[in-house]
Amino acid sequence: MTSDVTNILLKGRARDVYRRDHAKADGRALRVYGYSPHAGEPGEELLASASDQSELRRDPLRDTWSLYAPHRQARTFNPSAAADPLAPAGGGAVTEIPFRDFELAIFDNRFPSLKPGAPAGALTGWAEGPARGRCEVVVYTSAAEGSLHSIGQDRRVLLLEALVDRYLALHAEGAAYVMPFENRGEQVGVTLPHPHGQIYSFPFVPAPQAAAAAAFAAGYDLTADHLGWGGRFDVASEGGVSAFCPPFARFPFETWIMPRRRCPGPWAMTADEIEALAALLGDVTRRLDALFGAPMPYMMSFQAAPGGAARDYQFTVQFFPILRDAGRLKFLASVEQHTGVFTVDVVPEAAAERLRAL
Amino acid sequence: MTSDVTNILLKGRARDVYRRDHAKADGRALRVYGYSPHAGEPGEELLASASDQSELRRDPLRDTWSLYAPHRQARTFNPSAAADPLAPAGGGAVTEIPFRDFELAIFDNRFPSLKPGAPAGALTGWAEGPARGRCEVVVYTSAAEGSLHSIGQDRRVLLLEALVDRYLALHAEGAAYVMPFENRGEQVGVTLPHPHGQIYSFPFVPAPQAAAAAAFAAGYDLTADHLGWGGRFDVASEGGVSAFCPPFARFPFETWIMPRRRCPGPWAMTADEIEALAALLGDVTRRLDALFGAPMPYMMSFQAAPGGAARDYQFTVQFFPILRDAGRLKFLASVEQHTGVFTVDVVPEAAAERLRAL
Repeated sequence: MTSDVTNILLKGRARDVYRRDHAKADGRALRVYGYSPHAGEPGEELLASASDQSELRRDPLRDTWSLYAPHRQARTFNPSAAADPLAPAGGGAVTEIPFRDFELAIFDNRFPSLKPGAPAGALTGWAEGPARGRCEVVVYTSAAEGSLHSIGQDRRVLLLEALVDRYLALHAEGAAYVMPFENRGEQVGVTLPHPHGQIYSFPFVPAPQAAAAAAFAAGYDLTADHLGWGGRFDVASEGGVSAFCPPFARFPFETWIMPRRRCPGPWAMTADEIEALAALLGDVTRRLDALFGAPMPYMMSFQAAPGGAARDYQFTVQFFPILRDAGRLKFLASVEQHTGVFTVDVVPEAAAERLRAL
Repeated sequence: MTSDVTNILLKGRARDVYRRDHAKADGRALRVYGYSPHAGEPGEELLASASDQSELRRDPLRDTWSLYAPHRQARTFNPSAAADPLAPAGGGAVTEIPFRDFELAIFDNRFPSLKPGAPAGALTGWAEGPARGRCEVVVYTSAAEGSLHSIGQDRRVLLLEALVDRYLALHAEGAAYVMPFENRGEQVGVTLPHPHGQIYSFPFVPAPQAAAAAAFAAGYDLTADHLGWGGRFDVASEGGVSAFCPPFARFPFETWIMPRRRCPGPWAMTADEIEALAALLGDVTRRLDALFGAPMPYMMSFQAAPGGAARDYQFTVQFFPILRDAGRLKFLASVEQHTGVFTVDVVPEAAAERLRAL
């Protein structure tokens, strides 16, 4: 077990932060981010067993890709609180982050769908190829519970600085598409209650992002479009950043956040915009939780320019909440799954009006 | 309330069947299909309140369409068995099918996402247009419970003959894409336990079907591809029809059924193929139910040539089961929802092997 106690000072977009890199004994990387340098020797840490490489296969009819990862069947499923793998060390459990304290941490997923390097042994001779890429876990806090709202503004800014650091590193190593995201709530299958997100680094540009890149390259300007809606779809604004329900939302209460100028990703945002985006990440989560008086289950992602390259790609953060009413899930059934056409029970302008009032 | 007691004899693909057309007092059409002419006066029937027209909106980024149907929020939700709207008349409840008995019935949905004609009053000035089309309910049996397996071969053949009748009529009125489908199980949001499917008639070709049409037009031959897999993905065969797990399946235990020759839709199938398809619809449902010893929740659809036109489109029936293990749902979370990339825990060749053995 090696520990490099050097802290790297990162010149952040809004604030300077420190990063400490720790190499786990199984070869996985763990990065601890904070406003102060991180110290302390690592204790016992959770390690991965050698897991098989996933495969990538192409659907010749839809022209989309799927990842085949049978080893993920064994992954952690609703661990007891005492077995929280994202807890700091010293609580009695062996954890992924073997330090007594930390602010924010990002580490390589123990059950990755995408993995760097060559296949450890192909599952079959059939696949199109190994699923190269990365899957990382983003731990927002050492606390076992919380939300993007409850962690506070400082921690949200730290999160954005850490994500920018990962965007730059993953793009530099050739990632075709990097997507930070958060699944929240048992209703979307979240198996760990500890507040966390993930990052997937794809070796290809997924179909919806390729379609968006084509639309932006062809001249579509989401910021100009948004301006034309006259505030009717707006939920909240902060500095140069707005939260709104897009008129073409597919989920009830779907909410997007974006800078109100053309901007390809958080790496290109100003200090004020980063602070405003951080504030709105908290504000939107607060509003979604207030809507039905309970934590809103959602799927949230950062949608930035593929490869970091396209300057005309408009960066958005997209929340897909999955309740259509108190205690009532929006189910995605045959129409959505077989045709991609969503039937939406809550019109976005009505959703925006309700969220705006909260 | 008018009742036309004429029965029309339909020369079926495999067997001749009768159709009785009944116009409900609210203008909705009800068609009763059977092997014998249907008789009897209609009793009291469930009628629709005037419902708003849905809207169709285009997502400029994904280049896909959504249907906005706020009036659907009020739709039937887990009615008590006594209030089964698909029951035959005489059981105490007012029903959609006001006859003492029937074999199979297809009627216009009371809460349609797609509706013929002009909008009754636009929801907003924003939408791209009214959501023209049709939504129909297909009732497999007068029994309150059952499955595609339990209803038996005669009823499955009748179902296929009735679907062909609807395909031909909807294509004749200009439908761009007709999709019969079945949602099954509470886990996919099914609100009525009575065995039934649906038909959506779309005014446009949805993206996955447009992609498939392009692939077929470019020369992709699924039947030749299937032949090359050497039976490794096969689940069962019957006459000239096969059931298999496609190598590029996105759902665990995803199973397709198709004629082993190029065939655009069930209207182009021979009598033997219709009988074989009917047998496999029952057999696949039986196997999926046997897999975990409980009714498998699934989303199943008939994927035929858009508009009935493209002769090179390969007809398939696709079952998307949503359990990845006993009692464990396959959740579609951020990766699937934000990128369209599916992570699959069960490799299709292993799924096929398990289903084949049952």
